[in-house]
Amino acid sequence: MAFSDLAGFERILKQAPGPDMEAQAAATARNAQLTKPAGSLGRLEEIGIWYAAWRGEGRPRIEKPQVAIFAGNHGVTARGVSAFPVEVTVQMVANFQQGGAAINQLARNAGASMSVHALELDRPTGDFTETVAMSEADCVRALKTGWDAVDPKADLLVVGEMGIGNTTSAAAMAHALFGGLAADWVGRGTGVDDAGLKLKEEVCAAGVALHGGKAPLAILASLGGREVAAMAGAIARARVLRIPVILDGFICCVAAACLEKAVPGALDHCIAGHQSAEAAHRAVLEAIDKEPLVSLGLRLGEGSGAGLVIPLVKGAVECLSGMATFAEAGVSAG
Amino acid sequence: MAFSDLAGFERILKQAPGPDMEAQAAATARNAQLTKPAGSLGRLEEIGIWYAAWRGEGRPRIEKPQVAIFAGNHGVTARGVSAFPVEVTVQMVANFQQGGAAINQLARNAGASMSVHALELDRPTGDFTETVAMSEADCVRALKTGWDAVDPKADLLVVGEMGIGNTTSAAAMAHALFGGLAADWVGRGTGVDDAGLKLKEEVCAAGVALHGGKAPLAILASLGGREVAAMAGAIARARVLRIPVILDGFICCVAAACLEKAVPGALDHCIAGHQSAEAAHRAVLEAIDKEPLVSLGLRLGEGSGAGLVIPLVKGAVECLSGMATFAEAGVSAG
Repeated sequence: MAFSDLAGFERILKQAPGPDMEAQAAATARNAQLTKPAGSLGRLEEIGIWYAAWRGEGRPRIEKPQVAIFAGNHGVTARGVSAFPVEVTVQMVANFQQGGAAINQLARNAGASMSVHALELDRPTGDFTETVAMSEADCVRALKTGWDAVDPKADLLVVGEMGIGNTTSAAAMAHALFGGLAADWVGRGTGVDDAGLKLKEEVCAAGVALHGGKAPLAILASLGGREVAAMAGAIARARVLRIPVILDGFICCVAAACLEKAVPGALDHCIAGHQSAEAAHRAVLEAIDKEPLVSLGLRLGEGSGAGLVIPLVKGAVECLSGMATFAEAGVSAG
Repeated sequence: MAFSDLAGFERILKQAPGPDMEAQAAATARNAQLTKPAGSLGRLEEIGIWYAAWRGEGRPRIEKPQVAIFAGNHGVTARGVSAFPVEVTVQMVANFQQGGAAINQLARNAGASMSVHALELDRPTGDFTETVAMSEADCVRALKTGWDAVDPKADLLVVGEMGIGNTTSAAAMAHALFGGLAADWVGRGTGVDDAGLKLKEEVCAAGVALHGGKAPLAILASLGGREVAAMAGAIARARVLRIPVILDGFICCVAAACLEKAVPGALDHCIAGHQSAEAAHRAVLEAIDKEPLVSLGLRLGEGSGAGLVIPLVKGAVECLSGMATFAEAGVSAG
């Protein structure tokens, strides 16, 4: 399958397969017979059945979780919206490659493979207060980077990002997608002060004044970043391959929201890994109707919150597929 | 170290060592230099430093997590307080031993060893509405079972329980320890109906009418169960060995609360793994001043909620000990 423009990408997403209802029924039936009081594993039961449906197996396993990290640079950093210098993006890519970042530890902890994809770091996106962040061709190239990054043999996907300035980009996208005020969507990112927050708000409002009202994927191109588009491309590919996805924080969820806005239901194969400390993440989660698994005050990006909770999803699936039934174990049902 | 009565047990607990402040300082200093914005790993940072302090190492690892499950039978089941027949305790012990229960899957998922300890299942405790659940000698024997179950080489401990009727026992203990009304502490356990809930409330009130006002460890003996005392013994032993503990659900936290009530600070080496769906768990967590890591609607016991989140604690420690510093990675600090 291939796409050469945003319309083609959207068409593929629209035609992507849904969950396997037969596998869902088999998993639901199995869950009801396991050696535990009905419903006593709470949300784990739901997750196990959801996972089984997407994988098309009544008794699935998670053996190849994949973490894919995308990095991009943002023209809007010229406006002074980040607490960190723009050089940090390339420095952090090296840190990912050398195994020194948080996500390296969390991916290893979860038994996941990890790949790092730097997207034209020497060619920042356009400053979206003046022009589009990406031309359609640029955006399509970034979507394809994400698309191609997904291992077709993976059975669970986490996408993460690194890009100095990208909370501002994501805030502008969320403002354009969901309305409200610019102030509703900006937050402190990696740690700006009050003046920095005010500046982010102005920059965000200016971007939406210029690009608001466009279609969801055009918003992605106009206000997003290459790493943001790559995440969207990877999440879309996972949908086509029926690989369940754990969404990370604010930026990841905004990237995902473009898909959902373009094609309602496009995120049915996704679960929210966590609620971050970035102020507007909660609102984005509500807009895409996802309840986070944990809320531990993370605000790092890099896929860290989603990577952290891979073992929770794995644990849910292990219970569904590994537990004995009442009959097998000779345990009296209640 | 040995104890032969409850006073001796309490004395040992009082003399148990605290965290290593030097390791805590080293971990705090290291955390501040890691390649991430300050504070951006949220609660993971706190957990990593807490773990380092208890292990006495500035850069610790978790390599030998242990799950210990205790099972006991309760005389109070004669009152009809459970939705399941009492035979289920012994059946579930066999299921644990054969690897078929939820906790088997979750322990394996977390890379933890697991041991199962059945405590005189053919000799249920006394019906606490008529007599003490355990004599002091019985309670001391159960505490010792827990004490001896802890592997001194373990570096993280989860304790879990199985015992038909034990939410009623734990509700009575919580009522005796923390006051309020019996109705504040009873819940649906493995799934009783409204009439069953009312009955649990009456049984709980009757137990407290008979045994309320005793000292915390006498409450454990009078209203608890062998598996409940064993959990308390294991948590105390972990304190002496400076092995951090992840607390499980309602029953585990009530067992732990007896230690905290007897010796304030006795649970400083413990973290709350989850908040269960059992109604009164939140109140017990507040009473022992613990914030749960997750809240996913589990209400199974068996150490399942705590076992589920072992990888979260491990992830926190991996970040602290495995990440590169700004200097090591050549990343510009913000």
